[in-house]
Amino acid sequence: MMTVNSLEIPRFSGIRTFMRLPQAADGQKADVSVIGVPFDTATSFRPGTRFGPAALREASLILKPYCPVVDVDILEHLTIADYGDCPTIPGYTAESLDKIQEHLFPFYKENTVPVVLGGDHSITLAELRAFHEAKGPAALLHFDAHSDTVPEYFGKPYNHGSPFYHALNEGLIIPEKSIQIGIRGPLYDKHILDYPKNKGLRIVLGDELHNRGCDAIIAEAIARLQGSPVFLTFDIDFLDASYAPGTGTPEVEGFSTRQALCMVRKICKKIDVAAMDLVEVLPDKDASGITALAGVSVIHAFLAALAWRKSNTPS
Amino acid sequence: MMTVNSLEIPRFSGIRTFMRLPQAADGQKADVSVIGVPFDTATSFRPGTRFGPAALREASLILKPYCPVVDVDILEHLTIADYGDCPTIPGYTAESLDKIQEHLFPFYKENTVPVVLGGDHSITLAELRAFHEAKGPAALLHFDAHSDTVPEYFGKPYNHGSPFYHALNEGLIIPEKSIQIGIRGPLYDKHILDYPKNKGLRIVLGDELHNRGCDAIIAEAIARLQGSPVFLTFDIDFLDASYAPGTGTPEVEGFSTRQALCMVRKICKKIDVAAMDLVEVLPDKDASGITALAGVSVIHAFLAALAWRKSNTPS
Amino acid sequence: MMTVNSLEIPRFSGIRTFMRLPQAADGQKADVSVIGVPFDTATSFRPGTRFGPAALREASLILKPYCPVVDVDILEHLTIADYGDCPTIPGYTAESLDKIQEHLFPFYKENTVPVVLGGDHSITLAELRAFHEAKGPAALLHFDAHSDTVPEYFGKPYNHGSPFYHALNEGLIIPEKSIQIGIRGPLYDKHILDYPKNKGLRIVLGDELHNRGCDAIIAEAIARLQGSPVFLTFDIDFLDASYAPGTGTPEVEGFSTRQALCMVRKICKKIDVAAMDLVEVLPDKDASGITALAGVSVIHAFLAALAWRKSNTPS
Amino acid sequence: MMTVNSLEIPRFSGIRTFMRLPQAADGQKADVSVIGVPFDTATSFRPGTRFGPAALREASLILKPYCPVVDVDILEHLTIADYGDCPTIPGYTAESLDKIQEHLFPFYKENTVPVVLGGDHSITLAELRAFHEAKGPAALLHFDAHSDTVPEYFGKPYNHGSPFYHALNEGLIIPEKSIQIGIRGPLYDKHILDYPKNKGLRIVLGDELHNRGCDAIIAEAIARLQGSPVFLTFDIDFLDASYAPGTGTPEVEGFSTRQALCMVRKICKKIDVAAMDLVEVLPDKDASGITALAGVSVIHAFLAALAWRKSNTPS
Amino acid sequence: MMTVNSLEIPRFSGIRTFMRLPQAADGQKADVSVIGVPFDTATSFRPGTRFGPAALREASLILKPYCPVVDVDILEHLTIADYGDCPTIPGYTAESLDKIQEHLFPFYKENTVPVVLGGDHSITLAELRAFHEAKGPAALLHFDAHSDTVPEYFGKPYNHGSPFYHALNEGLIIPEKSIQIGIRGPLYDKHILDYPKNKGLRIVLGDELHNRGCDAIIAEAIARLQGSPVFLTFDIDFLDASYAPGTGTPEVEGFSTRQALCMVRKICKKIDVAAMDLVEVLPDKDASGITALAGVSVIHAFLAALAWRKSNTPS
Amino acid sequence: MMTVNSLEIPRFSGIRTFMRLPQAADGQKADVSVIGVPFDTATSFRPGTRFGPAALREASLILKPYCPVVDVDILEHLTIADYGDCPTIPGYTAESLDKIQEHLFPFYKENTVPVVLGGDHSITLAELRAFHEAKGPAALLHFDAHSDTVPEYFGKPYNHGSPFYHALNEGLIIPEKSIQIGIRGPLYDKHILDYPKNKGLRIVLGDELHNRGCDAIIAEAIARLQGSPVFLTFDIDFLDASYAPGTGTPEVEGFSTRQALCMVRKICKKIDVAAMDLVEVLPDKDASGITALAGVSVIHAFLAALAWRKSNTPS
Repeated sequence: MMTVNSLEIPRFSGIRTFMRLPQAADGQKADVSVIGVPFDTATSFRPGTRFGPAALREASLILKPYCPVVDVDILEHLTIADYGDCPTIPGYTAESLDKIQEHLFPFYKENTVPVVLGGDHSITLAELRAFHEAKGPAALLHFDAHSDTVPEYFGKPYNHGSPFYHALNEGLIIPEKSIQIGIRGPLYDKHILDYPKNKGLRIVLGDELHNRGCDAIIAEAIARLQGSPVFLTFDIDFLDASYAPGTGTPEVEGFSTRQALCMVRKICKKIDVAAMDLVEVLPDKDASGITALAGVSVIHAFLAALAWRKSNTPS
Repeated sequence: MMTVNSLEIPRFSGIRTFMRLPQAADGQKADVSVIGVPFDTATSFRPGTRFGPAALREASLILKPYCPVVDVDILEHLTIADYGDCPTIPGYTAESLDKIQEHLFPFYKENTVPVVLGGDHSITLAELRAFHEAKGPAALLHFDAHSDTVPEYFGKPYNHGSPFYHALNEGLIIPEKSIQIGIRGPLYDKHILDYPKNKGLRIVLGDELHNRGCDAIIAEAIARLQGSPVFLTFDIDFLDASYAPGTGTPEVEGFSTRQALCMVRKICKKIDVAAMDLVEVLPDKDASGITALAGVSVIHAFLAALAWRKSNTPS
Repeated sequence: MMTVNSLEIPRFSGIRTFMRLPQAADGQKADVSVIGVPFDTATSFRPGTRFGPAALREASLILKPYCPVVDVDILEHLTIADYGDCPTIPGYTAESLDKIQEHLFPFYKENTVPVVLGGDHSITLAELRAFHEAKGPAALLHFDAHSDTVPEYFGKPYNHGSPFYHALNEGLIIPEKSIQIGIRGPLYDKHILDYPKNKGLRIVLGDELHNRGCDAIIAEAIARLQGSPVFLTFDIDFLDASYAPGTGTPEVEGFSTRQALCMVRKICKKIDVAAMDLVEVLPDKDASGITALAGVSVIHAFLAALAWRKSNTPS
Repeated sequence: MMTVNSLEIPRFSGIRTFMRLPQAADGQKADVSVIGVPFDTATSFRPGTRFGPAALREASLILKPYCPVVDVDILEHLTIADYGDCPTIPGYTAESLDKIQEHLFPFYKENTVPVVLGGDHSITLAELRAFHEAKGPAALLHFDAHSDTVPEYFGKPYNHGSPFYHALNEGLIIPEKSIQIGIRGPLYDKHILDYPKNKGLRIVLGDELHNRGCDAIIAEAIARLQGSPVFLTFDIDFLDASYAPGTGTPEVEGFSTRQALCMVRKICKKIDVAAMDLVEVLPDKDASGITALAGVSVIHAFLAALAWRKSNTPS
Repeated sequence: MMTVNSLEIPRFSGIRTFMRLPQAADGQKADVSVIGVPFDTATSFRPGTRFGPAALREASLILKPYCPVVDVDILEHLTIADYGDCPTIPGYTAESLDKIQEHLFPFYKENTVPVVLGGDHSITLAELRAFHEAKGPAALLHFDAHSDTVPEYFGKPYNHGSPFYHALNEGLIIPEKSIQIGIRGPLYDKHILDYPKNKGLRIVLGDELHNRGCDAIIAEAIARLQGSPVFLTFDIDFLDASYAPGTGTPEVEGFSTRQALCMVRKICKKIDVAAMDLVEVLPDKDASGITALAGVSVIHAFLAALAWRKSNTPS
Repeated sequence: MMTVNSLEIPRFSGIRTFMRLPQAADGQKADVSVIGVPFDTATSFRPGTRFGPAALREASLILKPYCPVVDVDILEHLTIADYGDCPTIPGYTAESLDKIQEHLFPFYKENTVPVVLGGDHSITLAELRAFHEAKGPAALLHFDAHSDTVPEYFGKPYNHGSPFYHALNEGLIIPEKSIQIGIRGPLYDKHILDYPKNKGLRIVLGDELHNRGCDAIIAEAIARLQGSPVFLTFDIDFLDASYAPGTGTPEVEGFSTRQALCMVRKICKKIDVAAMDLVEVLPDKDASGITALAGVSVIHAFLAALAWRKSNTPS
């Protein structure tokens, strides 16, 4: 499965697909399946991430297949195809989550690694439901500024601030094999993280990550995530507001793309990631496009780790 | 009820309220009640009008009380207060419509003219329901590029493209006393406007308005709207995309602010408008702020006509 | 050939193609062939129109098939497909013109109407060469603020200000059957338009169009363009800078979208247009996207006229 | 005095001067003297016009010497030079007005037509003082959305809303030979224009200009302005907000560039304009640069009229 | 004093006040008084910070009461109210400083901690004069890229580059108990900082802060600031241009929000800060809003330290 | 050679030249010659750097002569003049390179240090050819995210991704005395850097720079660059995308302005740099102007090192 060669055809040419890879034909299978979920109805503050998948595809034009840090050529080891976007129902959150789950289920069921382009973070609940239906509960590797474990907003259960409350409650993730990294910024109250902590979820606050350093947390994550299929969810606001201004609820005191990509590469080389998503890119606030670029760079780091694992696994 | 004097205190100063008017105290009454409805969950394409009320308040800083075209000082004849925003439930359309209706009902019930700052056009359904509950069915004066009479989107009833389908169906408006002006742009199919037309609604296409001119339509609207309390709803995309770029689904071949304000002033001086709203201002696409400015100018034109009617009515 | 139904699948979803129409499969034929030419190397002032095709596709998401002004459903009478983008060689103008000509030739040769999404105006020279090779010389219907008939810039022949000089010189267009409409703004010198005029080309200055009105020019154009296959080229800066800010050399004292669409619809219903292009949309200067919207609206007006001709022609 | 030839050297090249004309050497004289006054300290609402001169120079790169409407080559009949910017004292209005007056006086004293690039409208008071000192009182030709005749703001005399109050009071302009055109939008109160009207100033409201048409006002202005040296001041907000979004207090219901340029050309061909300025361009709100373009186009229209007068005057 | 609960009422709703806290009623007292000073007349380069208070209030919508780093709930220990904006006289610097001083004096006199939202840095002179009048000279804790100790600009004393020259000269601050941190970028000349240094002011250049690290400077600041009431002034350009692009004279080689917030929290937990301001946020250059977000985050860090001190002080 | 004193004349005043320095008169000589090369025709992805020189001059208004880190006053030791822009031929890469080489040759031939403001990186090939012609082969000090050593793009040799392939091939640089620093991001394939490495060029990948630290690379660079005249080329995308969003192909995982300026200052104090350029600033993507600011700050750091060398060299 070949990408368009950007040394032959300029990269600003053509119908936009992820990394200029082929749009998947009916029934086609690939090692990695890229699917957009343009949904932002569950956003509590600033909407617009429904245009995230398009922005990520546009930003991905600039990507190339060889990663010099991991020393691997992604397309040499992986077939990747773009499966377009999942249908949603703007204005109807619960119904959309059902529709997303249904649409994504076949991907989780198949022998492929789905890479979902969000979309607000509520979609991860639909993904985890489909994942659970196909593979059982997941170990969660979660990069974010926010824990997203609030039970309800405005008297309603579904919101981009609540997916992991429901995931815990519905048994979709294994708390003792899950970890949230980078949670920071002011909170509603002192006890708002008690519930997920009491359930067994490990929450690494931003302050702890700054103080202990990335390597310590990488080691802890690898130890924790061993032995179960891992679901990687990356909210772009894990990055500092200066690295990712284009998101709905940016937070200061965050992390650099260098830190993020190193963590993703090092952790994912050592564990079995079965699915990922990249959420909360909001193009209207991304004046120069660096947020979408950061987003596809995180995906690229993950793909490099995945390709490395495949190239280093006896078949 | 006095506005802040911008010759004494610079207009860039202070907590933002509509026209720098006082924020209403509990239980306070005014001739005109300004209420924001920051809701955009029912948007089918580009969301963000939940920030419309704030943008309209910011743009209204520039307004002054005397209208030289109508020759009336608005604040000499009308008390006006800003009642803040209505609560909504982002992510839940039907529930939000109920909540909006409930919040607005007391305004329609009282002897005040509510001016609602939207929000997407779905909120007008909630307004019309509250209006109906308080006063009975309305004669509708509707400026827009789109008829918004599609029965459903994505299999669901509520959407900013459907409020007037439901208003017709629920008997909230009197079709034979209602008029839509400026509808234009490509349509889904040739028969999509048959239902409202068959119900008796008058739809003035943009092409007709261009060809026959504003004065002919003004006369027709005045004749049609006589004798019932009128609900004025103004979708900012009635204006051409060059006059109102900051909206979710702008349309070309539209109308100027000169045309819009003349129509509003001339019609509203002759009929009894009991409520109005101004919807679909989308600040994220309003690079220079001229769309919000156009929006508050439409409201100002309406207020001038209202003040004129009051000053010319024997009490 | 069906477009995606935007009442079922939200229009912000999916891989972007023109009007959400299918991307053409190999060897597929359609009545209308949409092809992007992302080329701006020949731009004399502000580059960036290489991103024009992508912006036009994005703006076209909003289009619907039925045109109420012409009273025709485009997709009922025409099959349309998106053929992606033509390869170019950024940095090399002459070589790119050859490459574009070669890529487009099969479309002109076939029984299809190519609609080219530019790109700067230099590409029209390549199109006219391919057109000439396939069909012989063209009658030219040209909307623009600039005549683009300068023989050379900076000592070199090819530039977006020179295509029609070469077209005249190479015999690609029939001057006495061609017309330029809307040319305005200051000129390099009084005699710069003498050459094309002396060749027989009709140049309607903006001042004349303002003074005589659209209907007079429509009649003149129809009379002039009868009897030969017509090539329609529309430079977005025909529109006034307020209607089309997103272009490299905008001009004031221009025309509205209402005027442009009326002229396109009325002329093209009466003549045999065999090809069109829409050029000089520059997304980086199109803060709110209204320029790209105007561009696709012009194309839509043309398609409506084309569908109308087909539906009114005894087959 | 030659401009750089944009057919030889691309217009995006070089140190920016007005119309790529030579920067004036010490003691040099020209028929027209372009001087920037980067001052916005007297702005009551949104500051930033201190960057107006730079934006106008940038926009002027696109201008060419021949005007086809007036049929005259500006540089054939006029020498023009760019004299750089006048020093000011940001933060100190009265002192800056003195400094500007002193700096500009030699230009008014000399046999040259100064063209001042603003800056906010307060600078016109300094210009009129220098003009008066050099030539006596002026007949004023004033295009604007605002009369700018408020006696004081915030208890202080100098503000961009007050220059013409002081000009009237100080006898700098001859009221019965002066005219304000285009004044519109809401006013502080019904009587705020009584003072200038009672002084004898003719104020053409926007509503009157819309209703009577440009030709009637052109005729009236020519009649009124005959026989005295005329000072032309053009506030960019005379234009509608859609044509000139980049200004501090834009107004809707305004005028097009077509209307503005026609009025300037027709009036200035018939009267003796001794000085002009173009004020209130605010680059930070001019997302696509069309406001600065409109500004330099107004200046170009004036220069064409001036060149026409010179070419049609027996020397 | 309760903030609006953002889990019940969406945070994009309502009249904007700081942190959605109540607007203060007449005569009301609170532990912390938030007051805007929308003044930028003294800006030497790029104006617009008069819109800073509004932008900071908008950005503060996102704040929540509990700070996990300090482990304190701000609103549990502090009452906070928004007192709106101070009146100013745009165009008149000295008079505005008097007006600001007079307006703020009662706050410094009362038992409250004023938090001023700027505005350009000249306002700090007015604040320090009011502070001095109420409490005597201040120990100054000053984060900035610029020392702002130039005696005069353009022959005049008051400018946003001169407040601390006057503060030193007028005895408003105690030099040996004051410290400037982060001063960097090119200077007018080698000796420009001699005056404040000779007066006894400690100036920590950016280079020194980078080389010695934050902890060393924190310790030095705490030692220096002990024993007198401290005035904290934070110019947002202390942050690197990438973290705070929205300011008038950004500087590279600056500091991250992580560094800034850590320094503010650690120092302010150990000293008695009696007043603070946050200045130089310029919304027009803050494309994605991250500068205003950084600004309110600094204030939040200060409030957390203040709340911590109160909660850890025996009453 | 004096700059305009920004304490006397506000820095927003006047015709824009680099650092407000005098525009060079004919035949004038200076220690440092600033020349713009507004060329972007060879850009493979996003064009627009032809407006780089103007943006760099605008950003340079903010610079002052004394550098506190190096402790040197640049203008005390160096004369600097702005020589305006080099002519180019947009649309013709090879011909433009010739024209640039010819225009720049006299500067390299003279006893001056040319500082070139780009422009895309292809111009460095023209500079190196002129340098070679005047002084022989150069030692190259190259900061960049991309090696720019691809032999050809789209079948053509000249592109902003290929200059150093040609420089190596044409013997313009001495590989064993040259170093590229900061190369990062995905590559077309694993072997794409083999050619330059085999030629002897030292390529420091971004990963290595992050891991070994700046000081190690500074030392290596100084050792390598000794003994030959050095050509310094700085592509702004060496900086991380958050520090330099305004460039055509930004890369994440990059470096801060602190790191960049330290490296430039420390290396250039120890070696003999005979020429420099700063390329790839793209104003249209530089929403807040921080990229151009970073660019002129790099130049300032270089000038400080140059002034320091001169002030510390026995004459």
